[in-house]
Amino acid sequence: MQSVVSLVRKAHSIYIATHIGPDGDVIGSALGLFWALTALGKICTVACADPIPASLAFLPGSEGIVSVPPSGQDLIIVVDTADLDRLGSLYNESAFNSVPVINLDHHITNVNFGSTNIVTPQAAAVGEMVYDLLLRLDVPVDKRIATCLLTAIVTDTIGFRTTSTTPHTLRLAATLTEAGAPLSYIVEQAFESRPLPVLRLWGQVLSSFQINDGVAWASIPNHTLLRYDLKEDEVTGLVNFLRGTQGAQVAVLLMESTNGTIKVEFRSNGKVNVANVAATLGGGGHPAAAGCTMAGPLAEAERRALAEVRRHVHA
Amino acid sequence: MQSVVSLVRKAHSIYIATHIGPDGDVIGSALGLFWALTALGKICTVACADPIPASLAFLPGSEGIVSVPPSGQDLIIVVDTADLDRLGSLYNESAFNSVPVINLDHHITNVNFGSTNIVTPQAAAVGEMVYDLLLRLDVPVDKRIATCLLTAIVTDTIGFRTTSTTPHTLRLAATLTEAGAPLSYIVEQAFESRPLPVLRLWGQVLSSFQINDGVAWASIPNHTLLRYDLKEDEVTGLVNFLRGTQGAQVAVLLMESTNGTIKVEFRSNGKVNVANVAATLGGGGHPAAAGCTMAGPLAEAERRALAEVRRHVHA
Repeated sequence: MQSVVSLVRKAHSIYIATHIGPDGDVIGSALGLFWALTALGKICTVACADPIPASLAFLPGSEGIVSVPPSGQDLIIVVDTADLDRLGSLYNESAFNSVPVINLDHHITNVNFGSTNIVTPQAAAVGEMVYDLLLRLDVPVDKRIATCLLTAIVTDTIGFRTTSTTPHTLRLAATLTEAGAPLSYIVEQAFESRPLPVLRLWGQVLSSFQINDGVAWASIPNHTLLRYDLKEDEVTGLVNFLRGTQGAQVAVLLMESTNGTIKVEFRSNGKVNVANVAATLGGGGHPAAAGCTMAGPLAEAERRALAEVRRHVHA
Repeated sequence: MQSVVSLVRKAHSIYIATHIGPDGDVIGSALGLFWALTALGKICTVACADPIPASLAFLPGSEGIVSVPPSGQDLIIVVDTADLDRLGSLYNESAFNSVPVINLDHHITNVNFGSTNIVTPQAAAVGEMVYDLLLRLDVPVDKRIATCLLTAIVTDTIGFRTTSTTPHTLRLAATLTEAGAPLSYIVEQAFESRPLPVLRLWGQVLSSFQINDGVAWASIPNHTLLRYDLKEDEVTGLVNFLRGTQGAQVAVLLMESTNGTIKVEFRSNGKVNVANVAATLGGGGHPAAAGCTMAGPLAEAERRALAEVRRHVHA
């Protein structure tokens, strides 16, 4: 971490890059870092190739995130990103080869693509790692920074529910709450506030999903998403519910995009490592929560995904 | 609290009484206390007039909870109970008048029915208060006690999601986790593990609940519960989802029991105090989560409950 501190201290302008399909950890970590580096007098830009989910729009600074990579910065920090493919259109080989690249991540699958790599798989969220960095940089954690980092932690632990949640995670959450981060407001924004059409779609899926031999699954065709005027990235959290069905070791949720590709989410109760399942299908993630994107048609993707899951369930 | 410590030290046999419609806080607190008092050499019995929910059956000692009040104890401790009506058939006037009664609660509506009353409305859960008592009694908090108390805290804060959750709550959770309480297992048991028929019923309700003028509501007739082979006390958590609908300040869920009475649950985003709503209908609870039991028929109970909610929304 000391090398990161000196790179940051030397830099004048810094570009923070985040992964496609952004979630609360990557955006909260990037914005927490943004406010801290700005407080240190750095010129700082956060970029994400994909749109920021509406559930994260409450984060201070989210409106300033750009979708096209900025140029001319003298340091790049990539957060919560296991490999450069996950940067989508942000990745530019010559730009990434011309300045130091700090790779700050907690995915065990991280490929160490940076010139400096800080990969801590035991961190429940990259937000925890950013907090450690800010301590070393001597940046006071104000309400804005605390809100961003607590959002990172709350979202990646699904509200302190994952096995990755440690006593350190809970104590850091207490510290961030004392620094002004509004825990119950964050939970409300990130998890509990859902548009009516999302709940209607949940209703339909919960009424009809299938469960067999320890695997719960559902496939949502694009015409169903269109009927509720939803995009697949607006359907978050549902797969956790399928996993919670008594008797389900693994849940699989497949959603057909408008472009015909299939977004697949996997969740596990811990017995099956779904990061491995997702990896064999070209994706990745954590042992209990992973995902991939598959070619259509939907029925064929469902067949392939379920076959791969069953192979791991019975391994 | 010092008076409680001396009463406990003097007592030989202790009876811990819990409220009807038992939840994780009352049962977790009672069982945490049970294991601690047993470790101090007391003869201890936990009683509850109603059956213990299946989601709490994992708590060590839950199988030993009796439904008929024991006799001959020389101290009664009532936990998490605002008034003696909430003890249901456990309450016996002469028994309660013949020995000291400690009233350990965090409901602001507590009527101080004990001979010693420790009522701390700012405690997120009675589990927090029991932990304080155990510190003063010098009882080491082992894995069993920690599991019971963390379950109390996790359930009453809906997994650290309520506005009652404080930095102290989070640090205590960290301490209990270090003492051996399995946080993610507790969450799984208490919240995430749901029988398939419960999820099917959720599906039906989420597909059809109504929302109007800041109020989301649904009424579940008894024949619907029977169709899924469910009792109304097995449908927990659904009302929180209704409350999470964007635009809903208050949610109301009505469920018709087999005996024709209507169980009503209220949730609020904080603007309306639903404890007041429930109180005008003969119930009680917390500002953001309350309930009552009404006479049927269901449609008439729905009309009255919604009228009362709307009166408070527009007050």
